[in-house]
Amino acid sequence: MEDFFSNIVESQLKEELIALRREFHKFPELGWQEFYTTGKIMEYLERIGIPFLYGKDIINRGFCWGRNETAIKEAEQVAVQRGMDAERIKKMEHVTGLAAIIEGKKEGPVVVLRFDMDGLPEEESSREERIPNKENFCSEHMGCMHACGHDGHMAIGLVLSKILWENREKLCGTVRIVFQPAEEGVRAGKAFATGGALKGADYFLSGHLGMGNQTGELVLGTYGFLATTKLDVEFIGVSAHAGASPERGKNALLAACSAVLALETLCQDSRGVSRINVGTMEAGSGRNVIADHALIRLETRGETTEIEEELHAKAVACVKGAAAMYGCRCQLKTQGGAPEAKSDKALIQRAKTALMEEELIGKEQGLIHTLYEEKPFQGSEDASYFMKEIQKHGGQALYLGIGSNITAPHHNIAFDFDENSLFTGVKVYFTIVKELMKGEE
Amino acid sequence: MEDFFSNIVESQLKEELIALRREFHKFPELGWQEFYTTGKIMEYLERIGIPFLYGKDIINRGFCWGRNETAIKEAEQVAVQRGMDAERIKKMEHVTGLAAIIEGKKEGPVVVLRFDMDGLPEEESSREERIPNKENFCSEHMGCMHACGHDGHMAIGLVLSKILWENREKLCGTVRIVFQPAEEGVRAGKAFATGGALKGADYFLSGHLGMGNQTGELVLGTYGFLATTKLDVEFIGVSAHAGASPERGKNALLAACSAVLALETLCQDSRGVSRINVGTMEAGSGRNVIADHALIRLETRGETTEIEEELHAKAVACVKGAAAMYGCRCQLKTQGGAPEAKSDKALIQRAKTALMEEELIGKEQGLIHTLYEEKPFQGSEDASYFMKEIQKHGGQALYLGIGSNITAPHHNIAFDFDENSLFTGVKVYFTIVKELMKGEE
Amino acid sequence: MEDFFSNIVESQLKEELIALRREFHKFPELGWQEFYTTGKIMEYLERIGIPFLYGKDIINRGFCWGRNETAIKEAEQVAVQRGMDAERIKKMEHVTGLAAIIEGKKEGPVVVLRFDMDGLPEEESSREERIPNKENFCSEHMGCMHACGHDGHMAIGLVLSKILWENREKLCGTVRIVFQPAEEGVRAGKAFATGGALKGADYFLSGHLGMGNQTGELVLGTYGFLATTKLDVEFIGVSAHAGASPERGKNALLAACSAVLALETLCQDSRGVSRINVGTMEAGSGRNVIADHALIRLETRGETTEIEEELHAKAVACVKGAAAMYGCRCQLKTQGGAPEAKSDKALIQRAKTALMEEELIGKEQGLIHTLYEEKPFQGSEDASYFMKEIQKHGGQALYLGIGSNITAPHHNIAFDFDENSLFTGVKVYFTIVKELMKGEE
Amino acid sequence: MEDFFSNIVESQLKEELIALRREFHKFPELGWQEFYTTGKIMEYLERIGIPFLYGKDIINRGFCWGRNETAIKEAEQVAVQRGMDAERIKKMEHVTGLAAIIEGKKEGPVVVLRFDMDGLPEEESSREERIPNKENFCSEHMGCMHACGHDGHMAIGLVLSKILWENREKLCGTVRIVFQPAEEGVRAGKAFATGGALKGADYFLSGHLGMGNQTGELVLGTYGFLATTKLDVEFIGVSAHAGASPERGKNALLAACSAVLALETLCQDSRGVSRINVGTMEAGSGRNVIADHALIRLETRGETTEIEEELHAKAVACVKGAAAMYGCRCQLKTQGGAPEAKSDKALIQRAKTALMEEELIGKEQGLIHTLYEEKPFQGSEDASYFMKEIQKHGGQALYLGIGSNITAPHHNIAFDFDENSLFTGVKVYFTIVKELMKGEE
Repeated sequence: MEDFFSNIVESQLKEELIALRREFHKFPELGWQEFYTTGKIMEYLERIGIPFLYGKDIINRGFCWGRNETAIKEAEQVAVQRGMDAERIKKMEHVTGLAAIIEGKKEGPVVVLRFDMDGLPEEESSREERIPNKENFCSEHMGCMHACGHDGHMAIGLVLSKILWENREKLCGTVRIVFQPAEEGVRAGKAFATGGALKGADYFLSGHLGMGNQTGELVLGTYGFLATTKLDVEFIGVSAHAGASPERGKNALLAACSAVLALETLCQDSRGVSRINVGTMEAGSGRNVIADHALIRLETRGETTEIEEELHAKAVACVKGAAAMYGCRCQLKTQGGAPEAKSDKALIQRAKTALMEEELIGKEQGLIHTLYEEKPFQGSEDASYFMKEIQKHGGQALYLGIGSNITAPHHNIAFDFDENSLFTGVKVYFTIVKELMKGEE
Repeated sequence: MEDFFSNIVESQLKEELIALRREFHKFPELGWQEFYTTGKIMEYLERIGIPFLYGKDIINRGFCWGRNETAIKEAEQVAVQRGMDAERIKKMEHVTGLAAIIEGKKEGPVVVLRFDMDGLPEEESSREERIPNKENFCSEHMGCMHACGHDGHMAIGLVLSKILWENREKLCGTVRIVFQPAEEGVRAGKAFATGGALKGADYFLSGHLGMGNQTGELVLGTYGFLATTKLDVEFIGVSAHAGASPERGKNALLAACSAVLALETLCQDSRGVSRINVGTMEAGSGRNVIADHALIRLETRGETTEIEEELHAKAVACVKGAAAMYGCRCQLKTQGGAPEAKSDKALIQRAKTALMEEELIGKEQGLIHTLYEEKPFQGSEDASYFMKEIQKHGGQALYLGIGSNITAPHHNIAFDFDENSLFTGVKVYFTIVKELMKGEE
Repeated sequence: MEDFFSNIVESQLKEELIALRREFHKFPELGWQEFYTTGKIMEYLERIGIPFLYGKDIINRGFCWGRNETAIKEAEQVAVQRGMDAERIKKMEHVTGLAAIIEGKKEGPVVVLRFDMDGLPEEESSREERIPNKENFCSEHMGCMHACGHDGHMAIGLVLSKILWENREKLCGTVRIVFQPAEEGVRAGKAFATGGALKGADYFLSGHLGMGNQTGELVLGTYGFLATTKLDVEFIGVSAHAGASPERGKNALLAACSAVLALETLCQDSRGVSRINVGTMEAGSGRNVIADHALIRLETRGETTEIEEELHAKAVACVKGAAAMYGCRCQLKTQGGAPEAKSDKALIQRAKTALMEEELIGKEQGLIHTLYEEKPFQGSEDASYFMKEIQKHGGQALYLGIGSNITAPHHNIAFDFDENSLFTGVKVYFTIVKELMKGEE
Repeated sequence: MEDFFSNIVESQLKEELIALRREFHKFPELGWQEFYTTGKIMEYLERIGIPFLYGKDIINRGFCWGRNETAIKEAEQVAVQRGMDAERIKKMEHVTGLAAIIEGKKEGPVVVLRFDMDGLPEEESSREERIPNKENFCSEHMGCMHACGHDGHMAIGLVLSKILWENREKLCGTVRIVFQPAEEGVRAGKAFATGGALKGADYFLSGHLGMGNQTGELVLGTYGFLATTKLDVEFIGVSAHAGASPERGKNALLAACSAVLALETLCQDSRGVSRINVGTMEAGSGRNVIADHALIRLETRGETTEIEEELHAKAVACVKGAAAMYGCRCQLKTQGGAPEAKSDKALIQRAKTALMEEELIGKEQGLIHTLYEEKPFQGSEDASYFMKEIQKHGGQALYLGIGSNITAPHHNIAFDFDENSLFTGVKVYFTIVKELMKGEE
């Protein structure tokens, strides 16, 4: 490793990281629509020669939540228009994401890393003083923006792949580097966590830039991901003329209103955080017509999976009861979800030891001046599906908080992060993977 | 008949009517609690020798709605304390009401008359200028009052029984004179209408004093009884400490509130009058406890039975759905009911002709100066069960409005009626029954 | 009149009526967007030389309800694209509609006629067997259709204007023929009824083709227009992240849901028909965001203006209370309205007599085989504003039902009517106006 | 102290404590009704000669929440019937509770102690194996029970008063020992905390037996009292006959139902525990009458006073809005309340040191084998008003958890505690007071 991360190479790596990140930043794509992005990652891996899996080889189609098939069709065309090979997109069979597979020279553990890929439906700020504007890598995809740092995650993942590939002779075991779409709305986590990438896996690593941690800070062992379910409910009634024959209607708007009021009463819980929100409603077709449909979009969250699952079950009973009250039907559609999860203490300690041995931490010239062994996440993130899944089979998981100064809150249109943290990310991941794959001593 | 209703006898009849009415007025009893009243009617009939049926011989126990068994037990004791023979009450087997049976000398039609018996849970006004107070026949039963005129109905029914019995040699067919309990809340109508009194019946007569008609007015052919159902719904949840473990509760109060709001949205109907009311709610046991029970009392009404039945079905679905919303159960209990009904035109005409032939109507000295052939009732009345039942089997029904000046609205604590109308009532009923039972001409 | 309506001329009139109707049918425009239509009517009147008023001379800008200013701007451009003179449209100052003014030779009463102009937001049926499709006058304005017969009303109004103009020497008094936009949603009635057209008026006539009446039937004296108000309510709250800081939000969706449930409980009324409907809701911006806005569209109706006004007042209190419950604001916007109204009996009789004298009714060859003197309308129609307004000042009003066989219900995409009824309409209106303006006899 | 707590005296003290506790246990009285209890405490103090204050000298009448004046009148009579001097009760002027005042020989701090007095509306268990039943000190006051340990608190308070009085020559400063009524429902805390007892006070001590702590455990420094408000809301509408004239009613039941549903949506808060509960509703007078009144009893709680106050403000807005929705009025009545509070760390440490010096803690023969320096309370307790009040003026507060094995949960009808803990309580309080009043060293 020493020679690899020599000063000279470091500067090249940093340049490459920034270039990659900026390329991704220029063309953000929404969840399940990352065709151009997936194509660019494939091209990168192919150039180096790293094998990868995609489509049904790596994705459980049964849990591809929250897809908008019409928008996906359009996104495929947009990717072609931007120059992506149409054949390549066709082979994806409408599903984005992939996993690079790097086999070490000897037997050893299976280590899975996961980086997320999607942007947000926002129009990036055009304020001139922002670096993306000054240095011309602002979003060129109208109405879409990398405002959460996933562009950086992918850059880390790719450069890390390259380094691991180049060092594959020294590694014992296998690394799988998953590029996962649709993390926003926690829509793709389960499809990938149960899609093959974790088969026989021993260790799982993922993480996030920023999230309240400054450049130079590192969190080993994030916990407190809120379990969550994203649910759409359509109430279906019968329309009728409101003046002439109201008795013939079955009022879906009333069913939805009764449901909303009831849903928001459900989350008092002494065991921990419990949240419910009905964020939107669209109902009815005209002022003088009994509404025959109403769509609500809601989410439940819980500090533990137990809290969330109970709340979710109550919510389901609630909407079904509300529909029945007015003679309506209802259709429920899961649009996303994630469980609670926490990092394994043993892996935290092992990573910490390795990072200290490599002098990444604590030294005055070290990249990391402050280490938090455990810190709550305060939100939901579907990496938790990978964590739970691997832990269920006896593996260990670690979620990293990679500090990075940010210019505005995550998801804000003025969001940007400190690109220096990309190199830190690569070194941290590489150090931990090297430790896990060093073979018997 | 002529000799019977001679001037001399008339004055005796009027005296008896007033005496009987005042005796009933002194001791009103609530619905299903008319033990003293039933006993007094039995004594009257026995003195004359008129046979009667009661208990399971005349009542369908399956539809004895809206009974308060605890209060009924107490009422039995109160009746004994007031001097009624305990054996007589025991024989009633906890169910009040009876039917006098008068057989004519020859074959002929079966004519059923029905008079109601119950008082209201009100404290009679003690204002000195009222006749009941001046003449000392005010209610002696605290918290209970004949404030609707049923005392008058019973007096008419008894004197009519006596006259018909005395004239039985001249009558062709059978008269059954039903004294029905629990008309308030329309609780006993179905039990009596389906309990045997209408078996093989050809004609049905009933009526009401007052109800917007003045002394000297007569309505032949009331219509527009609103169909109605009286329903109690108990929501049953699970209690829990509201501060310490709210998640363990299943909130019956919330279920009831959701139900109430939804129920009151259900009655827009282009076909006619449709009404719903949740009149009362009692819920919960303590401020800091999740409520595990909630009781609502509601009623549905409809201008037609079709409207009411549809509304009732919607209401039932509504409360069940509301219970399901919060994981609660619900128990529904019918506490009363009545269908719509209307008088038969043929019977109206036949009655009119008879009344005119007897010169009850229209003559200057006639008892009735104004006749309405049809007039709406504007309310519910469970005589409608008898009307529907007899019409279903090919018989005819007639509901009379017997005009009587009143001192305050029905159900008001200052209510009283003009006792002169009692004699008019007897003559009208007698004249119509005589016409129906006069035999072939 | 005799020579005027000779057989020869009749056939020309019929041809013209059908041609005009079809021209209007080809280019329907939504309410307040009838720029092309208004322009064509102006051109027609100008060709003949009939003076007319428009814009602020005839319209009370304070009651131009339910306007969509963006769509109106676009409609102006569309009208120009279709060939209407841009200058003419500019002069309208964004408000459609006009009134032709025909002065008779002598003093006499002021007679006001009103015809409505707008189409509906529907895509006309393309079924080949329909006459509009077979004869090529189907709507050429995508998404818009004359599906209520207003195209026929305008044809009648124009031909009637021409005949009256040609006969003006024989008329005593003044005729004002109002072409009113935006009757659908009862949006423009009040603006025109209070805008000058009724100044000093003595008689008001309006009517509708079809509406349940067959060709050959005529209703003189429609009544039972339901009073109505169309109201939009916007609830405005404060958004917040539903997971991270729900306590900071003020939930506009909850306010709207509470309002909807409460609104629909308000319309039990013993005095007559009372209706309320919340037809649509749109609320919120994202699943995980406390909704900061919610828009509901509702309408109230009443058999009498008193019922409707009370209901409307209750509805306003209700939405304001609901907003206050959740710390939200609300904005109310009236989008339409109409009072109850009924035709004057004296005018019905006068019209009937005139029609019989002209032998329009009853004769075997007469245009009208069945006359109804009074018939309920069963809906709302903002001609009622004219009727109430003129009656308030001592004038008389008459609303006609001009029978016409229809191919599908009003507002259905397959709607069409029997064009023979256009000529009947012209003759009926002309006969009545002639009677009213015949001068002293 | 040494001589005082000699072994011989100890046994006498223990006997007296148990005797007093059992005397109080035999006659529990509900909050604000502790007339007999107050009288017995006065008698005890008078026997010894300890001066005391009561009534307006010690109670702020403006915050006497949750009083039932009718029940209070009856309780006064019951106390006389049980043998309490009627004159003594009359002097109380309908308000229970008192404060013993013990002046030390020298200047020094003011130390306030507070013990609560009230029982619960429960029927004590009659199971024979319970000590209260075996030893014949079960409640003789039907429907009322000391099921929370306040009988023990008073016994401690009285014996402590006696010891302090006997040692008053050695004390520097003043002790005020408050016996506070109506702790259940947190009804009297504010009235006493602002009523004079804390004037110029430097230290405040209170505590509770049991509450999850076993005999031999002591908590110095309880925290986490939930702030709370107890609120009654009466909705006042207008009644009307539900069938005949529903439009005349203003439906208080609907207002209450809208309020309940809305209230229960208000407590999602990211800052900490937030609870709301509407525990009961009573509404309406009859099934067929629009309900003109509805009473709900609710409580709000918060982990901090800030959370609770915001929630309370939202709740108030909510019920007012709900009333306005239906044209109703509402009356709000605070029935109880308590703020959050925590013990002062300096006082915890000083108490700990004193207890260790006296060898109450840690020694094998010591009374206390386990000490918790801080432990959450998990509930509400209106001693918190005293704590906040004294801290506001620069004083220090300490709330003790005095361990005691219990036989059933607090408030359960089978509740009983280990009477050995009474002596521990006296020693702990005495030790701390002695430390605080030892004068300069």
